[in-house]
Amino acid sequence: MITGKNYIGNVLSSIGKITFKTFNPKSNTENDIVYTEASQIEIDKAVSLATEAYKSFKNVSGAKKSEFLNEIANEIEVLGDDLIKTFCSETGLPEGRALGERGRTTFQLRSFANLVKEGSWVEATIDTAQPDRQPIPKVDIRKMMIPIGPVVVFGASNFPLAYSTAGGDTAAALAAGCPVIVKSHPMHAGTGELVASAIIKAALKTGMPNGVFSNLNSSGIDVGVKLVQHPQVKAVGFTGSIRGGRALFDMAAQRAEPIPVFAEMGSVNPVVILPNAAKNKGEFWAKTYAGSITLGSGQFCTNPGLILGMKGDDLSNFIQVLSEEIIKVEPSCMLHPNIIGAYENNKAKMQSQKGLQTVVAFDKDVSTNFARQIITTVEGATFLKNTSLHQEVFGPFSMVVQCEDNEQLEQIISNLEGQLTGTILTENDEIGSFTKVVAALQNRVGRIIYNGVPTGVEVCPAMVHGGPYPASTDSRFTAVGINSIKRWVRPFSFQSWPNELLPQELRNENPLGISRVIDGKTTTNPL
Amino acid sequence: MITGKNYIGNVLSSIGKITFKTFNPKSNTENDIVYTEASQIEIDKAVSLATEAYKSFKNVSGAKKSEFLNEIANEIEVLGDDLIKTFCSETGLPEGRALGERGRTTFQLRSFANLVKEGSWVEATIDTAQPDRQPIPKVDIRKMMIPIGPVVVFGASNFPLAYSTAGGDTAAALAAGCPVIVKSHPMHAGTGELVASAIIKAALKTGMPNGVFSNLNSSGIDVGVKLVQHPQVKAVGFTGSIRGGRALFDMAAQRAEPIPVFAEMGSVNPVVILPNAAKNKGEFWAKTYAGSITLGSGQFCTNPGLILGMKGDDLSNFIQVLSEEIIKVEPSCMLHPNIIGAYENNKAKMQSQKGLQTVVAFDKDVSTNFARQIITTVEGATFLKNTSLHQEVFGPFSMVVQCEDNEQLEQIISNLEGQLTGTILTENDEIGSFTKVVAALQNRVGRIIYNGVPTGVEVCPAMVHGGPYPASTDSRFTAVGINSIKRWVRPFSFQSWPNELLPQELRNENPLGISRVIDGKTTTNPL
Repeated sequence: MITGKNYIGNVLSSIGKITFKTFNPKSNTENDIVYTEASQIEIDKAVSLATEAYKSFKNVSGAKKSEFLNEIANEIEVLGDDLIKTFCSETGLPEGRALGERGRTTFQLRSFANLVKEGSWVEATIDTAQPDRQPIPKVDIRKMMIPIGPVVVFGASNFPLAYSTAGGDTAAALAAGCPVIVKSHPMHAGTGELVASAIIKAALKTGMPNGVFSNLNSSGIDVGVKLVQHPQVKAVGFTGSIRGGRALFDMAAQRAEPIPVFAEMGSVNPVVILPNAAKNKGEFWAKTYAGSITLGSGQFCTNPGLILGMKGDDLSNFIQVLSEEIIKVEPSCMLHPNIIGAYENNKAKMQSQKGLQTVVAFDKDVSTNFARQIITTVEGATFLKNTSLHQEVFGPFSMVVQCEDNEQLEQIISNLEGQLTGTILTENDEIGSFTKVVAALQNRVGRIIYNGVPTGVEVCPAMVHGGPYPASTDSRFTAVGINSIKRWVRPFSFQSWPNELLPQELRNENPLGISRVIDGKTTTNPL
Repeated sequence: MITGKNYIGNVLSSIGKITFKTFNPKSNTENDIVYTEASQIEIDKAVSLATEAYKSFKNVSGAKKSEFLNEIANEIEVLGDDLIKTFCSETGLPEGRALGERGRTTFQLRSFANLVKEGSWVEATIDTAQPDRQPIPKVDIRKMMIPIGPVVVFGASNFPLAYSTAGGDTAAALAAGCPVIVKSHPMHAGTGELVASAIIKAALKTGMPNGVFSNLNSSGIDVGVKLVQHPQVKAVGFTGSIRGGRALFDMAAQRAEPIPVFAEMGSVNPVVILPNAAKNKGEFWAKTYAGSITLGSGQFCTNPGLILGMKGDDLSNFIQVLSEEIIKVEPSCMLHPNIIGAYENNKAKMQSQKGLQTVVAFDKDVSTNFARQIITTVEGATFLKNTSLHQEVFGPFSMVVQCEDNEQLEQIISNLEGQLTGTILTENDEIGSFTKVVAALQNRVGRIIYNGVPTGVEVCPAMVHGGPYPASTDSRFTAVGINSIKRWVRPFSFQSWPNELLPQELRNENPLGISRVIDGKTTTNPL
């Protein structure tokens, strides 16, 4: 069923010369199928099909787009066990995770289907004419969101389904009316092709234009660079490392016509354990965080890599229980030899930093590609001085910073780079004495959590997944939840445009029955 | 009343060494007052005050921000004749224009005051907890827009009030809760200082933190560069040339922490005159456009610099009447010797392009700094081949392109750079035969106009002022209208946050009575 070819629009194609295979980290062996990287000709063809498809797809009704998105979800489910097995063989992740992530993926697709079927998301706004206004008449102006153009999506290595081929970025862009070209992640090219086949089937079934979706294999950075630099590409979605995301952002900014890049990148997701929480609930939080830090081998963008507390017996206790608990966790497989390699590397680099102490490190033998968890600690003053200690170690690693006082804690937080999340662990109203700490944390993050863990990103309208740089390249948008559609649209005004020539969303009759703002009032009434 | 000093927060300051004067283009003489450019120390001080002010200003209630904005409008009116006279002496624009622009400015300020007083603009979204959900409980998540941080505003030379010191960018940023540092435009430094004094008075009267606003004089690019590169600055608003806007965009993108730049830049605002319109209404449109092209010496960003029609007698007729009409218009003064210099320069450069014919050029003697209007024409094929012909000539200049057929017309439009506006002039249902032309035009612009002129940008919620690059650097936002506030905010989520610690906007009780989305339903009810 997997061919190793690219989908250039609806057609399977493999005219390139560069080939590669995926890898099963659990068995530590290469998988069989040979994938062919997309050639320049195929890249150009995919973009030109997308550009042509955009002309009609941007006008496809919400109802039809909704059918398309729902059908993608159905077709993904139809892939059945093949998809789950391929997912597992390319990631080392357990079947339960594959099933859960598939559920998240289809849920996202169906959420966007509902959003565009209902239709009010376009923010239709009508200001009626006032021909008699003095000193000059007021013209009729009507505005709505329209799709921005062909979007390139770079999938995440750590979410082969939910943030990859038919993941959040793709679902949001298709919902918006933008054709999508996926730069397939080389680590899960088979999972990618299967999902791509589901999208293509859905596109054919629901009558979408050829080129509304393409899936390009790539073994390195080359295909991605060519896509981002292509003049007909109008926006980019990326989930991955800071280095990768920043490189794409720079490329996009340097184009003759710069284009927006929404890159969701690294984060250490600081957790502040306030004194009463450490004192009264230290053991509970230590147990909870032993789980959060090792969840999925620590391969979540919201993994808690940094814990900040006030130096003293209670924090020492917390660190001890955390260490005892985390050492009990059975190590698990990371996604790829490259990822475990980077983990070991970054861990060693961290451990070589002056003043960093390793409190506990899993040291029993483990299978190849399995990640061994580690807890480290450092003094607040040392952490403040050395920004190398602020960097993310992607994997089951966490660092506890022992702060001298409130002021140092606040200073440390203020000096952190932007983060996806921040968490406050607290008890018994003490938070009132830490308003500056909480304010500083809010200023560095996109989401703040009270007495919980950052792992687990609910897909819902109120979710913000993103944050000040480098959590993401543009904190004004979220990558998760239905509002992530706003990354791929622009507002457009029609002035004095005849009613019968307007899009349905802006016509007097309000044929779609959507919610609109007319002369400043929100209503579903016709004009 | 004008001191020539900078406002570093609430304090007048002039410790720098570089001084300059403004110029009266009408009398062709320097104005008297000496302005001192902001020094590095003053720049740093303004940014550090803004950073400190942000900590409290971001939490100031909508009601209080509304008082502040309304008071700015009041204080601008209190400036009375001084402001109008200074405006005229620094721009050569007539008093009527000064009065009109002041009205637009105070209207914008009061519109934002109303917006934030009402409060629903924050897009409050609440997803309630479901503790019993399987397989895992759903947590309570609540989202709202929060201000992004200190914003630097570069005012426009051509709108010394409405898009400068207290113009659209400043009003939107203050409404959002962002402190503003204005890089004052050197051509109207006096107007800028007067308006800045009104803002400072309003800030003091309504108890805003010191540093919520600063106004920095500058004679060249230096002050602006330092501001955009300052690590504590979090966003930039700019109105001006493509060269200037792009330079700032590049600088901001190259920072260690890239920041968003919304630059509203050049545009030739293509107007398509379809055959029936040329035939039946050619004379009417020719007269109308003679006015639109010369309005304010052609110094509007929406000035129609490009008219596209189908070669033939009707278009020739249109060109002839346009020429006869435009030559009757009395030339008027441009903003500054530099601007008229650039106009003459760009005009000559255009006229030297192969194939471009000058149909009519005002050739009588005029006062120094007065702009002489000109109409040119060129064949479609020539225009297509030479992108130099696509560039804006800022001033009373327009070019009529004579197209061979529909296909060439569509091709020309598709090859244009991004534009603020596009206009269709049409009659008697012919537009049905030009759907591809209309679609191509929509794809290149932010606002499309039916049988009208692009000049005149209504300040209303449905307005889009912006468009594909280089009309603006980010087509996903508008620079005019209350939605321009979205440039300066980011979404922020609170997870499981105690009700009493939440901002008013997100509390169960909905104390502000704003419209919110709760579990997917829009309501003003409490939870």
